[in-house]
Amino acid sequence: MNPIEGHLPTRSPLHDILAPTGIAVVGASSDPTKRGYKAMVGLIKDGYKGEIYPVNPKADMILGIKAWPSVTAIPGNPQLALICTPAATVPALIAECGRRGIKGAIILASGFAETGDEGIALEREMMARAEAHGVRIIGPNTSGVFNLHHRINLLALDNVKAGDVGIISQSGNMLLSLALEAQHNGQVGFSTYVGPGNQSDIGFNDYLRYLGEDENTRVAALYVEGFRDGRKFLEVARDVTAMKPVVVYKSGSTEQGQKAASSHTGALAGSYAMTVDLLRQAGVSVVQYSDEILPVAEGLGLLQKARGKRVAVISDGGGQATIASDRLAEAGLELAELSNATRQRLRDILIPQASTVNPVDVAGSTDAHPSLLATCMEIVAEDDNVDSVFLVGMFGGYSIRFAESLLGDEMRGAEAMVDLSKATTKPLVIYSLYTPIKPPALRRLHEAGLPIYASIEQSVRVLAALGERGQYLAQSHGQPPETAVEPKPALSALFAQAQAEGRDLFEYEAKQLLRDHGIDVPLELVVRSEEELVEAAARFRGTAGDTPLAMKVVSRDILHKSDAGGVKLNLVGEQALRQARAEILDACRAYDPDAEIEGLLVTPMARKGVEVIVGVIRDPIFGPVLMFGLGGIFVEILEDVAFRSIPLTRQDASSMVEQIKAKKILSGVRGESAVDKGALVDLLLTVSRIVEAYPQLSELDLNPVIAHADGYAVVDARVIVDRTIESTDKEAHA
Amino acid sequence: MNPIEGHLPTRSPLHDILAPTGIAVVGASSDPTKRGYKAMVGLIKDGYKGEIYPVNPKADMILGIKAWPSVTAIPGNPQLALICTPAATVPALIAECGRRGIKGAIILASGFAETGDEGIALEREMMARAEAHGVRIIGPNTSGVFNLHHRINLLALDNVKAGDVGIISQSGNMLLSLALEAQHNGQVGFSTYVGPGNQSDIGFNDYLRYLGEDENTRVAALYVEGFRDGRKFLEVARDVTAMKPVVVYKSGSTEQGQKAASSHTGALAGSYAMTVDLLRQAGVSVVQYSDEILPVAEGLGLLQKARGKRVAVISDGGGQATIASDRLAEAGLELAELSNATRQRLRDILIPQASTVNPVDVAGSTDAHPSLLATCMEIVAEDDNVDSVFLVGMFGGYSIRFAESLLGDEMRGAEAMVDLSKATTKPLVIYSLYTPIKPPALRRLHEAGLPIYASIEQSVRVLAALGERGQYLAQSHGQPPETAVEPKPALSALFAQAQAEGRDLFEYEAKQLLRDHGIDVPLELVVRSEEELVEAAARFRGTAGDTPLAMKVVSRDILHKSDAGGVKLNLVGEQALRQARAEILDACRAYDPDAEIEGLLVTPMARKGVEVIVGVIRDPIFGPVLMFGLGGIFVEILEDVAFRSIPLTRQDASSMVEQIKAKKILSGVRGESAVDKGALVDLLLTVSRIVEAYPQLSELDLNPVIAHADGYAVVDARVIVDRTIESTDKEAHA
Repeated sequence: MNPIEGHLPTRSPLHDILAPTGIAVVGASSDPTKRGYKAMVGLIKDGYKGEIYPVNPKADMILGIKAWPSVTAIPGNPQLALICTPAATVPALIAECGRRGIKGAIILASGFAETGDEGIALEREMMARAEAHGVRIIGPNTSGVFNLHHRINLLALDNVKAGDVGIISQSGNMLLSLALEAQHNGQVGFSTYVGPGNQSDIGFNDYLRYLGEDENTRVAALYVEGFRDGRKFLEVARDVTAMKPVVVYKSGSTEQGQKAASSHTGALAGSYAMTVDLLRQAGVSVVQYSDEILPVAEGLGLLQKARGKRVAVISDGGGQATIASDRLAEAGLELAELSNATRQRLRDILIPQASTVNPVDVAGSTDAHPSLLATCMEIVAEDDNVDSVFLVGMFGGYSIRFAESLLGDEMRGAEAMVDLSKATTKPLVIYSLYTPIKPPALRRLHEAGLPIYASIEQSVRVLAALGERGQYLAQSHGQPPETAVEPKPALSALFAQAQAEGRDLFEYEAKQLLRDHGIDVPLELVVRSEEELVEAAARFRGTAGDTPLAMKVVSRDILHKSDAGGVKLNLVGEQALRQARAEILDACRAYDPDAEIEGLLVTPMARKGVEVIVGVIRDPIFGPVLMFGLGGIFVEILEDVAFRSIPLTRQDASSMVEQIKAKKILSGVRGESAVDKGALVDLLLTVSRIVEAYPQLSELDLNPVIAHADGYAVVDARVIVDRTIESTDKEAHA
Repeated sequence: MNPIEGHLPTRSPLHDILAPTGIAVVGASSDPTKRGYKAMVGLIKDGYKGEIYPVNPKADMILGIKAWPSVTAIPGNPQLALICTPAATVPALIAECGRRGIKGAIILASGFAETGDEGIALEREMMARAEAHGVRIIGPNTSGVFNLHHRINLLALDNVKAGDVGIISQSGNMLLSLALEAQHNGQVGFSTYVGPGNQSDIGFNDYLRYLGEDENTRVAALYVEGFRDGRKFLEVARDVTAMKPVVVYKSGSTEQGQKAASSHTGALAGSYAMTVDLLRQAGVSVVQYSDEILPVAEGLGLLQKARGKRVAVISDGGGQATIASDRLAEAGLELAELSNATRQRLRDILIPQASTVNPVDVAGSTDAHPSLLATCMEIVAEDDNVDSVFLVGMFGGYSIRFAESLLGDEMRGAEAMVDLSKATTKPLVIYSLYTPIKPPALRRLHEAGLPIYASIEQSVRVLAALGERGQYLAQSHGQPPETAVEPKPALSALFAQAQAEGRDLFEYEAKQLLRDHGIDVPLELVVRSEEELVEAAARFRGTAGDTPLAMKVVSRDILHKSDAGGVKLNLVGEQALRQARAEILDACRAYDPDAEIEGLLVTPMARKGVEVIVGVIRDPIFGPVLMFGLGGIFVEILEDVAFRSIPLTRQDASSMVEQIKAKKILSGVRGESAVDKGALVDLLLTVSRIVEAYPQLSELDLNPVIAHADGYAVVDARVIVDRTIESTDKEAHA
């Protein structure tokens, strides 16, 4: 899709474009309602140190700076052009920029691919010029860019605090919302903002790589309507999340939202559930609600990571301790079980009515001594059973609620919390109902870099994100990449044959592929004659004993085997096999007299167990993706499935099995024993390796796989062949 | 539990207690850290017009008011006593209050039932005195009470705005949090607050009835850890929600939260999912997160109700339109399909890039004309396809973001919105990203009583609550109460017999109960001899043709029929029946030689269909409750069930079938036809009537019921008999 992207050097070339030494403003204006005015004002007001070249054929000076009649007329060497003129003017301007040596252009205009056929053609024309002239494109249909540490503010946003959160947002209003929130709550500031717009050239992956490299950025926060190259994005995200947190809000969680997004940026939304799984696999902190973006980014940027999920809650009111307990459990976090020593230390300083069982409720102990809350936090932070500390209640407001004389003690409490935050490796998350009032003790915490939250719900999202990030970093560092497998010539030959015959793999071929790579597929024999049937019956008596057998027709012409009468089950003994064979052949011939029948597949009936499904798709956005779920209604009705990008690590495979909501069923319900999860994990990993080894494999569907207490059996397998990819192995054509 | 409660007259006696003409403050103090000081200050500062009687044996004057050595020594006639002294002093003080003619006492102290056995005894002692002396108790373990319209502020909270939201909260900190939120966002004020604490006497239902009657209260908002008499609460809630909105946050959505709540107020939490269903059935607006309480209460108090779920979104940015679309769909709301006329009217005033498909994106049309947003709202509000209007974006901030000169037009827009809000019957919900900044146009809307929200997520919760409330009022007004049924003597006799024999109903008795009230239970015959078996076989040949039959042992001594070999399936022909009978009798005698075998139940095998479950429990908090869900894993693993308090209206029954997540399965999946939902609704209603008619029925479990395209079949039925209730019907003993 983007021929330039493949040639990026190690260091992102966006540094030149996003931190340029000279900027041309095409369509600069003295009219305050115009975008070309706002950009000029932004650059001048923020004190941009580079050269500014207003381009406007109708003006000599704009805002006191000499204007130029055209891009060609500019005397200096701007690296970036901000193009504020309408869509139709853009292709010619890009060519002009290229000839003038400009490396990048920001296209604000809408009216491109998001509007339909004409716009798509215009966007293509623009890209053809950009590629011909070596100009990189930001947008079109973007709100613009700022880079506050370089005093570049092309959006002319007022009062945006410089800080270390980098933003990439496909919505200008979302940026504005975050900026207002940051300004109002005064917690963090921003480094760089980019609006990728339609991503006709530069996409989310390039911008994210830039933020990953940018030393002024500590956390990246993204609002995404759609990725262009999702697979590349995941690759970049894996690299960046190893260094710094990446927070993503992905729109399109519903069909209604996907439609709206598509008319906004022309983005292909893709499956939301799959996107979320793949982002998490790459270490991204995905938030579900837009009002969690900033709190979670703040928390991840400012606080320690949590080693685990065990939270100690310190509260000065039972109600909020209860709410916190509910929200923590819903978010998959646990109340830490405090040690006896810890509980004794708490009892020593609190009144008898206090509860020292987590959630700790000081119950009035702190009414006259608010700094005791800090002491409680210190005590629980020292407990090995505790991974993070959550203060809930009215800290900061004691001097307002009770007596002004408490201010001194409250400030001592704040100092103690600041000291603790430096001394401990555990995160301290603080919710105060006085946050909106900004009392002195909370201001002190804020100045020391401790975020203060105004809602229990948001605080818990932060705790969850800290826990997930801690866990991800611990696991992904300890995880060796899984070994790949080599394609086997005989199996490559199967693909080649199928390609040559313009068909997918037969079921027995698909099963051979799996079996030859170590996957447990019950013995199956294709019998082509009465004699082969007799041999097969003898062979099954040897291996499967009295297990009843199943028989299915093998024919490329018969897709719906059951409808054709091509399936017989529960066959015991040679006589039953003979009869079944005759009946199937009769039925299938009656069903389709022209059908070419290869033979009959004979296999033992599956033992009872839990039906699971393993699937592989090649997603247009994310490439090869593995899917796992329980069979039947779980997949079809409840859509309870887990997705991972291929190749998988062992951790990825384990987490898939643990992720599905119906996982209880795998652990044994209604008196059934638990299934062998380890075997399922191995199955997922092997499928991942097979997909890597055979690029000719387009889709795979193991449905059902029957999971047992000891292993599993692949009952049905389907492999779709990509007929556009040639088998590279020479023996494939043998 | 509470003998006083039953005797409440029509008008709540709480009016005297919550709006008293004289208050005794027992434990009044001059020490600013004491609760008895705060209460005095609160009353004096807020200008309470009644008499204040500080009680303190160690002081002559407190804060300039004459103090009395004891309650007995008080000269006047206070109606209310605020008791600030420790738990141990309370029982004697209550007796003294009663002798002095005081009608109600607020007990602040903790140390009662929430702390264990000793506290439970103390609470019982207190209640014995209260009942003996006719004193009503608020608390114990409460944060207190305020009634701002009567200038009674016993919490001495500063800066609480008087308004029309009444609060009942089992957490003082939650009240404080709401008060700070209201003060800071400046949207609403409060009428009355009560902390029910342990509810040893007065419970949520009494307080809610008071708020329902209180003319200063327009909306009631409740934070609930646990109800004492849930059934009574539902009854009061039904009455109150017919007049004004009731918003409830119920804690204990998780086991972890229930434990925390129990240690806080000693409350029995009950099943969260059931509680939520029953509250909604009574018209309560249940919110899931604590930070939604105030926004939803505000919205319900200030805005029109919505007639339906079709929302028109007007936005000035695609990203936020997308987020809004996702949240609306998640909340079960729809994007209204705008009429062609509406779309044409929008096209007439907007620029060509604007999208007039809902969500409407003005796409720059308003950059220089923000008041156009109001015009768009007017246009969509006039569309019959639209039930509510949702403005999303930067309204109020145009003069900040673009040019100060836009302020005039923005103010005109605000005026137009105010006019529209008065002219239309549809709610206008406004989200602005400038809400935290409080710019002039938003201040104008606020003054006119239009709430402005700071988050899309919260706005959508408000829209959902307005839609649910509109729907509830429309449906509950149109709904005739379902007719009850009379108990039938023969069936009452079955209960009496079971009670006499100290057992539950046999399966065939339970089925007779159902069948005799018109429920479809397949024909079943109990055969007690070889001869009866032959007759039965003939009878089934007549009614069920060749349908295979099932046979099950009937014995009170054999609970697990299958384990005992007491079940045979798929029996065809008389010979098979004879053989099955012999085998079952042999097996059961071997299983338990002492078992008394009543006979054998013969019934046709059930047709295939969708397994559903209908259950009835008598909940200790909420009384008789009906449960409905799909069978097997849906109930056991996914807990996908709906609950309603008995008796049900037809609307209740229909909504149960529509509520379950797996309802798709009822509508037909994988090529199956849809089941007969109407028949299931009738089944639920009939079960509800049966439960009303037979108080001896303690629990009922129809599991499974097989639902078909035409009707259903109750396959298994269990009825548990309450052995403590005597059958009142005389013929029952015949």
